[in-house]
Amino acid sequence: MTEKILRVDMDSGDVSFEDVPDEYDAYAGRALTSNVIADEVDPQCHPLGPNNKLVFSSGLITGTSAPSTGRLSVGAKSPLTGGIKESNVGTDFSQALKKLQIRGIVVEGQSDEYKLLKIDKDGVDLVSAEEWSGVGLYQAFEDLNSEFGDVSVCGVGIAAEISGFNSGIAFNDPEGMSTRYAGRGGLGAVMASRGLKYIVVDDADAPGVEIEDRELFKKGRKKVVDGLQEHDVTKPDGALPNYGTSVLINIVNEVGALPINNFSEGQSEKAEKVSGEKKAEEIEKRGGVNPHTCSPGCIIRCSEVWTKEDGSDPVGVLEYESVWALGPNCGIYDLDIIGELNRKCNDLGMDTIETGATLAVAMDGGLIDFGDGEAALELLEEVKENTALGKLIVNGAKFTGDALGVTRIPVVKGQAMPAYDPRAVKGIGITYATSTMGADHTAGYSICQEVLGVGGKRDPLEIENKTDLSREMQATTAAIDSVGHCLFTAFALLDIDEALEGVIEEVNGVLGTDMTVEDIPEYGMDVLKTEREFNKAAGMTKQNDRIPEFMREEKLPPHNEVFDVSDEQLDSVHN
Amino acid sequence: MTEKILRVDMDSGDVSFEDVPDEYDAYAGRALTSNVIADEVDPQCHPLGPNNKLVFSSGLITGTSAPSTGRLSVGAKSPLTGGIKESNVGTDFSQALKKLQIRGIVVEGQSDEYKLLKIDKDGVDLVSAEEWSGVGLYQAFEDLNSEFGDVSVCGVGIAAEISGFNSGIAFNDPEGMSTRYAGRGGLGAVMASRGLKYIVVDDADAPGVEIEDRELFKKGRKKVVDGLQEHDVTKPDGALPNYGTSVLINIVNEVGALPINNFSEGQSEKAEKVSGEKKAEEIEKRGGVNPHTCSPGCIIRCSEVWTKEDGSDPVGVLEYESVWALGPNCGIYDLDIIGELNRKCNDLGMDTIETGATLAVAMDGGLIDFGDGEAALELLEEVKENTALGKLIVNGAKFTGDALGVTRIPVVKGQAMPAYDPRAVKGIGITYATSTMGADHTAGYSICQEVLGVGGKRDPLEIENKTDLSREMQATTAAIDSVGHCLFTAFALLDIDEALEGVIEEVNGVLGTDMTVEDIPEYGMDVLKTEREFNKAAGMTKQNDRIPEFMREEKLPPHNEVFDVSDEQLDSVHN
Repeated sequence: MTEKILRVDMDSGDVSFEDVPDEYDAYAGRALTSNVIADEVDPQCHPLGPNNKLVFSSGLITGTSAPSTGRLSVGAKSPLTGGIKESNVGTDFSQALKKLQIRGIVVEGQSDEYKLLKIDKDGVDLVSAEEWSGVGLYQAFEDLNSEFGDVSVCGVGIAAEISGFNSGIAFNDPEGMSTRYAGRGGLGAVMASRGLKYIVVDDADAPGVEIEDRELFKKGRKKVVDGLQEHDVTKPDGALPNYGTSVLINIVNEVGALPINNFSEGQSEKAEKVSGEKKAEEIEKRGGVNPHTCSPGCIIRCSEVWTKEDGSDPVGVLEYESVWALGPNCGIYDLDIIGELNRKCNDLGMDTIETGATLAVAMDGGLIDFGDGEAALELLEEVKENTALGKLIVNGAKFTGDALGVTRIPVVKGQAMPAYDPRAVKGIGITYATSTMGADHTAGYSICQEVLGVGGKRDPLEIENKTDLSREMQATTAAIDSVGHCLFTAFALLDIDEALEGVIEEVNGVLGTDMTVEDIPEYGMDVLKTEREFNKAAGMTKQNDRIPEFMREEKLPPHNEVFDVSDEQLDSVHN
Repeated sequence: MTEKILRVDMDSGDVSFEDVPDEYDAYAGRALTSNVIADEVDPQCHPLGPNNKLVFSSGLITGTSAPSTGRLSVGAKSPLTGGIKESNVGTDFSQALKKLQIRGIVVEGQSDEYKLLKIDKDGVDLVSAEEWSGVGLYQAFEDLNSEFGDVSVCGVGIAAEISGFNSGIAFNDPEGMSTRYAGRGGLGAVMASRGLKYIVVDDADAPGVEIEDRELFKKGRKKVVDGLQEHDVTKPDGALPNYGTSVLINIVNEVGALPINNFSEGQSEKAEKVSGEKKAEEIEKRGGVNPHTCSPGCIIRCSEVWTKEDGSDPVGVLEYESVWALGPNCGIYDLDIIGELNRKCNDLGMDTIETGATLAVAMDGGLIDFGDGEAALELLEEVKENTALGKLIVNGAKFTGDALGVTRIPVVKGQAMPAYDPRAVKGIGITYATSTMGADHTAGYSICQEVLGVGGKRDPLEIENKTDLSREMQATTAAIDSVGHCLFTAFALLDIDEALEGVIEEVNGVLGTDMTVEDIPEYGMDVLKTEREFNKAAGMTKQNDRIPEFMREEKLPPHNEVFDVSDEQLDSVHN
C-alpha cells in the first residue's frame, strides 16, 4: 500500500511516516480513528493530559472522484463525553491529505508552545504557531492562506486554547473560511492541549489516490452519481440543494419534534421565520451563494454562504442543526441574529449544537432570557474574553446547567442533543441514548425513516422495532463514516439498491478488495464494538445509555409524550 | 419500638410519623440513611431533581449517656459524586432527635419556598424560612436561637442556595454556632433543592432513648469510658484533647504525606507554623476554648474555639483537615488566614476539605497564586456574591479544575482528597479509591496503623495486605457510623479489646439484641454492599475506584513515590 500514517510527536517535535499496519488495511475514516484510539490510548487517561492522542483520517475513497466524499474523521478520547469520539467534517482538507497518500495523522505528546504542522509533497514541518494564537479563526485562516498560499487549513480557536469542553476543530470551506467543523465532543481542546494549533496541507503536485481497479471504481461511481441525481432528497433540483439542510425546520416543526426553548415544546408557529425556504429567499436577495459545496466533487450541494443583509461579511453555511440550536431552541426567530451567533461559533471554534444547547440551558437557568439574541451574543463575547462566565459557557450545556442548578439538561454522555426531541421521535432518542458518541443524530439517523419516509416509513411515536432500526442505522453509519461518503448520500443508498452496490464497487475498486453489500453492517458493527469496548474500559455502563430524567417525566407538547422506551429496550440495541 | 421515622413531604407540606420497618430494627446512622436511599431513591435520578431524598439519622446509641456518641448521619444521592452519600457530623442535634425518639427524618419532594422544619415534643411544623435565607449561617443560627429559644439547629447556607456541589449541611456546636458540618458530597444543595432551609429541634421534656437492658448498657458504657481514658491518643491529657486533631500536622508532615501546593510535595518545613501545638499555644494566649466538645458527653474533647488575635469573633473548631486544606495545600502557613477562610466556609455552608482542594486547584491553574491568602478569601467572597467565578468555586475542585484546564485534580468519584497523599500512605489511597463515598479518609482510616501505630504498625509505603486493611477498616467504620460512636473512639477500640466489647454491650443494652463483637464486620460490610449496589445502579464501575492519573505518573517528594497499587489490587478490596 502506498498510503502512510503520519505520526507527530509533540514532545520531541519528531514527525515520521509509518506503514499502515496490515490489520488496518481496510480501515480509514472512523474505522481508523477509532481503532487507533482503542489500540493506543489508555481509556482512563485525562482527555487533556499527556496520554491522549488525536487522530485524523479521511475516508477510504476520499480524494478520488467518487461524489460527495470530501469527508474526514477526527478521533480522540473526548473531554466532553469521557468516551471515544469520532467527529466528522466535510472539507477539501480531507481530499488534500489523501492525494498526498496520507491515510491518517496521529498526534501524540504535548508541546509547551503552539505549533503549526505543515504538510506538502516534499515533507512535513512543525513550526511555531504563536503568532496565530489568541485571534479569531476567520482572521487566522485568512492570514494562513496569505502566508502559505492556496492551502487546506485546520485549526483550533480561543475556545480550545482555554480548554473548553465545547471546542471543535475548524476546517476551511471552498472560500478558505473557518466554517467546516469537526465540532462535537471537545476535540479542539484535545488538539490545543497537544500544543497543536493549525495544520496546513498543500496538495500541489500530489500523486493522488492509487486505485487498484479503475474500471470497477468508475462503474461503482456512476451508480452512486445516478442514484444521487435520481433521489428526491438529493437530486439537483431537490430539497437539499434548494434549501440546504434547513429544509428540515418546517418539516420537523410540522411533526412536533422541533425542540423549542430548551426542549420545552416540540412546535412553534414562529419556526417558519427561520426555515430553509426563508433562508434561501434571503440569500438570493442578499447575493450570497446557494447552492454551494463543502468540498469539491459534491453533487448534493447542501451548503450555502449566508451574509449580512447588504451581502457583506459572509458567515458561511447555516446548517439546520445550527439554525435550530441558536434559534428556536433559544426562542430566537431572527436569521440575522442566528447568523451572527453562528459567526461567533466559527470564529471562537465552538460547536453550534452544543453552544445553542448551552445558551438555552443558561436561559432556562435564568442567566439570560429566552429570545434575547443580544444577550446570547454577549455570552459568547465572554468566551472570547475568557471571563469566568465565559469559562462556564465554553464547557457546554451540562457544565453550564450544573453551575446554574438547572436539572433540565438535554444531554447524553455529557453531549447536547441535536434538533429532534426524542419524546416526539422515539427512534432518534434510542440513537441518542445508545450511540458511543453521546447524543448525536448523525450516529444513526433514523429521521430518514421516522420523518422523511426514506428507507421505508415509520411512525415517529411508535416504539416497536425502533431498537432494530437504530442499531442498523448506527452500524451502517459507522461504515459510511469509514468509506468517506457524506452521510447525506444515505438518502439515496437507503432507497436505491444500485447506488449501494456502487459504493461497494467504488471501495473494491480503490482497495482491490472483494467486499459485498452484505459486509457493510458487520464492518460498521465492528467499529461500534471497538468503540463500546473503549467506553466500557473508560468506565461507561448501560446507565450511560439513558435519556435524561426530565424527558421521562415532562410531557412534550403538542403530542404530550414522554420518552417511554424502556431501559431493557435501550439495552437490547447493543446486546 | 418506640422510635419513629419522621417523613416530610415538601410537595404537600405533610409531615407524618411512621413505624421503623422491622427490617430496619437494627439500623440507625449510616445503616439507616444508606438503606433508605437504596430502597427509596432511583439511582439514576438527578441529585437536585424531584426524585432524590434526604435522610437524617442519629446513631443507634446516640442520645444515651454512652460517651462520644453525639453523631448524626445524613444521606442522599450526592450531586458531587453521583453516588450514594453518608456525611457524618458531631452535634447535639443528633442527641435531641434521639431523645424525642426520632430515629430518622426522610425529606422528599420539593417546595418552591424555603421552609423551616420545627420539631419538639408536641409535634412537627413546617413554616416559611424565607426571612433567614440569603444570609450568612453564623448570623442565621444566632437569629434562630433568638427566635426559637434553646434549640438544636441544622441549616444550609448560600452555597446550597446556589446549588453548589460543594455545599454542606451545618449543625450547631455547643455555642450555637454553625461550625459542625455534614460537609462532604454536596448534601447542602440536596437539602436546599428540597426547599428545606433549616431544621430546629427542641428536646425540652423529651422522653429520652428507651434502653432495654440498663445494667448491660451501663456495663458496656463503663468499658468504653475506661478504654478512652486509658488510650494514649484519647486519654484526658492525651494528644487529641491537648492539641485537637491538628496534632496530625507535624506527624503527617514528618512522614512526608502532608500534601503541599495541590499535592505537589509531601512535606514542608513551614508546616510547623500551623501545627496543633502552635494552635493550642495561640488559643491559650488569645483566650479561646481548648479542649472543647462538639456535643455533650464527649470525653475525648478534640474540639476547640479559635478566635481572632484579640480573642474576639470566635470561628469555632479548626480541624486538622481544614487547617491542611486551607493552609499547606494552598501554600498558606498563617493560622489567622486559615481561620478566616474556615469562618467563610462555615458562614457560606461549604465543606472545608473540598474548598481547600478547590482553591489549590485554582492556584495550580493560575487563577490566583499559591500562598496568596487574601486572594483565596476574595474567591470565597465571589461565592457569597454568586458571581460566575463564585459558581465555579462553589462546585468544587473537579468543576473548577475542568473550567481552568487543570489536569492535576486530586479527586476520586468527583470528591476531593483529604490530608494524606496516597503516594506516601498507600493504604489510605486504597480507601480513597474504593470507598463508596469518593475520596474520604473517614471511610477507612488506615492512618491509624500506617502512621499512628494504632491497631498494629504498618509501613505507610508498603502495599502488601493493605487491601485487606482498607477493607476491614471500611467495614468497621460503616458499623461505627451506624452505632453512633465518634470515629475517634476507634483509637481505643482497635487497641483495647474490652472497650470494643463494651460497644457491643451498649448496643445490646439499648436494643435488647444479642450481637457479638464478631458481628461487627458483617454488619458494616452489609452497609457497604448496599451502598455499592446503589453506586453500580447509578452507573459506577471499577473504573470509578481509581486514583487520578497524575498520581500514577508524578513522583511525590520526599519519598519520590507514585501511587503504584495495581488496578487488580484495588478491585480485590470489594470482590
